[in-house]
Amino acid sequence: MTNKLYFEKAAIIGVGLIGGSLAMIMKQKGIAGHITGVGRGKENLNTAKRLGLVDECTLEAAEGVKDADLVIAAVPVLKIEAVIKAAAPHLKKGCIVTDVGSVKQAIVDIVEPLMPEGVHFVPGHPIAGKEVSGAACADADLFVGKRCVLTPTENTDKGALAKIRTLWQEAGSEVVIMDAESHDWILAATSHLPHVVAYMLVNTVSEVGGSGRKGMDIFKLSAGGFRDTTRIASSPAEMWSDICGMNKRALSEIMENFQKRLDVMKRLIQSNDITGINKEFARAKSFRDSFNPKPRGHEGPCEHEHKHDHDCDHD
Amino acid sequence: MTNKLYFEKAAIIGVGLIGGSLAMIMKQKGIAGHITGVGRGKENLNTAKRLGLVDECTLEAAEGVKDADLVIAAVPVLKIEAVIKAAAPHLKKGCIVTDVGSVKQAIVDIVEPLMPEGVHFVPGHPIAGKEVSGAACADADLFVGKRCVLTPTENTDKGALAKIRTLWQEAGSEVVIMDAESHDWILAATSHLPHVVAYMLVNTVSEVGGSGRKGMDIFKLSAGGFRDTTRIASSPAEMWSDICGMNKRALSEIMENFQKRLDVMKRLIQSNDITGINKEFARAKSFRDSFNPKPRGHEGPCEHEHKHDHDCDHD
Repeated sequence: MTNKLYFEKAAIIGVGLIGGSLAMIMKQKGIAGHITGVGRGKENLNTAKRLGLVDECTLEAAEGVKDADLVIAAVPVLKIEAVIKAAAPHLKKGCIVTDVGSVKQAIVDIVEPLMPEGVHFVPGHPIAGKEVSGAACADADLFVGKRCVLTPTENTDKGALAKIRTLWQEAGSEVVIMDAESHDWILAATSHLPHVVAYMLVNTVSEVGGSGRKGMDIFKLSAGGFRDTTRIASSPAEMWSDICGMNKRALSEIMENFQKRLDVMKRLIQSNDITGINKEFARAKSFRDSFNPKPRGHEGPCEHEHKHDHDCDHD
Repeated sequence: MTNKLYFEKAAIIGVGLIGGSLAMIMKQKGIAGHITGVGRGKENLNTAKRLGLVDECTLEAAEGVKDADLVIAAVPVLKIEAVIKAAAPHLKKGCIVTDVGSVKQAIVDIVEPLMPEGVHFVPGHPIAGKEVSGAACADADLFVGKRCVLTPTENTDKGALAKIRTLWQEAGSEVVIMDAESHDWILAATSHLPHVVAYMLVNTVSEVGGSGRKGMDIFKLSAGGFRDTTRIASSPAEMWSDICGMNKRALSEIMENFQKRLDVMKRLIQSNDITGINKEFARAKSFRDSFNPKPRGHEGPCEHEHKHDHDCDHD
């Protein structure tokens, strides 16, 4: 048992899908002796207790983290400052604090200075999720095969980092270590920008549908391309406005890069430079294909002049 | 039999997925007595003949359209001018010409002046497709439940329009009639802009992955949101550069609207106006949800704090 990951007492602040699933994993694997759930909603906390995810519940972070060896802040990114401020004075020496926020530099900047002497903060971000939330949806397999990014700083305790890394490996994830700035850039590109774009695309299209085109139901004429491109515009607006707001620097810089490319493309279109348009599109296609090389659809008896995605031919 | 749709002799220029499927439908329903397939690839034409989609084949539009009562131009949009120029002098009086191109105003502007006296052009666009092409993939159900837009002008013969409308209804489609300009605006919004955005998004992200971030495999950290938003960037680049180039006016105008919205959003992000960001996102979400109100995922025993799309929680 010498090398086994074990925390005598753990506290999970925010027993939602992510926090609840971590609690379930720690219980099932014997990683935590006792788990306290901290939350704002009594009903959800009662569910967590009834399901055996946590041993005890409280509405007060200050009370919940007392004597904890491990504190997991699994609340929305904009709430982290408040809960850590409430909890910090009550953290015991040697306690490890970690989080699951989708932005990292802003959280590091907020949380590190709040940590008392001898308390170790390990910033983390599991790239996993589901279309449901709340403790009742806790799922021990939620992180299996997914990646979890940890973004230690020069202040991060190596022993604490190793333990949190093991925790995520026990959850089934591949742990990727990088600095917070790189994380924020990559997520700005692969996640935050696509969300901004999807939301703004819907707003652009809704205007065409609503005014100029005589109230016609514009969506009647849309096909799979539009549906897929804007699917994530159904994501919760509040969560994503918090995330985008907290990743201001990387996101606004990458938005500018994207805008420059749109400008170039608009000029190519306006000057009838179809060769130029094709060059840009072909570059994107080759990159996108390399990302997802699996063949789609039936490759049976048909002769293919070219292949393309479902529903895209004439949409 | 008086009102039954029937063409003694039909010619299909471009016996690919769309043209081949139309040929199959016309054969199965007894809509055409004799069909000539016109194409550039002998192998594909032989396949069309072997499958019984066409009775006869030729590489020459001029020859193929002789004596035809119906000519369907089912070639890529940039090829329409050349095939109609080649065919026009050989069209007989009373012949109906139609097309399946994804842009309409530019095609109307090209084709209408080329029509000889007494030949009737009906511009059309079936909003259907598949990820395969070629005559071998012909599918009599390709247009079932889909929409087909017809964009008659003040010059369009009403009898010819009625026949082409019936043809698409026989194919199982709902026919929508509108002017070419409205069509091009709506498709610019729901199809062409999403394609431009997906291609440019991939190029933006590929640059982040390639240079600044130390050659890291940026896609390793991407989740479902990025995959879906950029799926159509795997569509054939040449086809889409032709379409975008031919819908220059509507597309570049709607790109400008989109760019203005991105600018507003960038300023909200840069000024930390999370309420403002949330307002824009929430508007988009409400519009997008109304487009696709079907509930997703399991709604079972879980308590939902909020719902959101699969994989989007922490991607």
